[in-house]
Amino acid sequence: MTGFDLKDGVTRLAADYANAWNSSDMDAMTALYTDDVHWVNIVGMHWRGKAEVDKAHRIFFDIMFKGVPLALEEIESIAALPGGAAVAVIRWSVGAFTTPAGVRVPPSRDRMTLVLVRENGKLLIKHGANIQIDELAQKSDPVTASGSSGP
Amino acid sequence: MTGFDLKDGVTRLAADYANAWNSSDMDAMTALYTDDVHWVNIVGMHWRGKAEVDKAHRIFFDIMFKGVPLALEEIESIAALPGGAAVAVIRWSVGAFTTPAGVRVPPSRDRMTLVLVRENGKLLIKHGANIQIDELAQKSDPVTASGSSGP
Repeated sequence: MTGFDLKDGVTRLAADYANAWNSSDMDAMTALYTDDVHWVNIVGMHWRGKAEVDKAHRIFFDIMFKGVPLALEEIESIAALPGGAAVAVIRWSVGAFTTPAGVRVPPSRDRMTLVLVRENGKLLIKHGANIQIDELAQKSDPVTASGSSGP
Repeated sequence: MTGFDLKDGVTRLAADYANAWNSSDMDAMTALYTDDVHWVNIVGMHWRGKAEVDKAHRIFFDIMFKGVPLALEEIESIAALPGGAAVAVIRWSVGAFTTPAGVRVPPSRDRMTLVLVRENGKLLIKHGANIQIDELAQKSDPVTASGSSGP
């Protein structure tokens, strides 16, 4: 897979993921996973295998995410791995939602690490690790903050 | 690389990481990275390449992490990727620390996703995505909570 193909594949995957999310279509979302997918969500739950990842997402869409908009902000990075695999970081904006514990989460952004492998010519999600961006903490980023001219 | 070798390699990597952390030895930590490593930390900062990841860690150890103990709880999963690469989830316990914004973080646990590639017969970190476990939220895990007999 050439660099161009890889970028194209990740772009398509991100679009498919956003479409599945925004239509609460768990069949479409699950079709993006390998059978042995693992997922670590923003609060650190770790699900192992397609059955667990699918079950968790279906329940969370029922009680928390249905109708909550997800929008692609940027595919921040794509690094090729051996054998046509890749690891990408995708930044999303997410609408407000209420957690099962009753905590209202205002609109937020996530940085999602996706490990992607190629099956039947298509990139599938082998691993997801999704991190909610702490916007206040970004001001203390030693790399980006030092070059900032802002307050 | 066989399954056994992979487990051995990840176990060794985790031990090397913990040793580097606990001795605040950034040279040893940086030696575990590929040149093109990316890192997304627990608050969603995204660093690209060894120079950035190293710089950020040196500054954060100076102001926040030096003397904060890190202990391996469990290598939760290791999934083989093509070409001898792998993606692992490692659960750590971390001592209390104070953020640059002055927030005191009590002892906590992280689930760290590591994408590892083989260079010169050794596993190196190509990508890290570290998620702080929200302990309260674990009670709402649709996968583990449903099978729990606890309160």
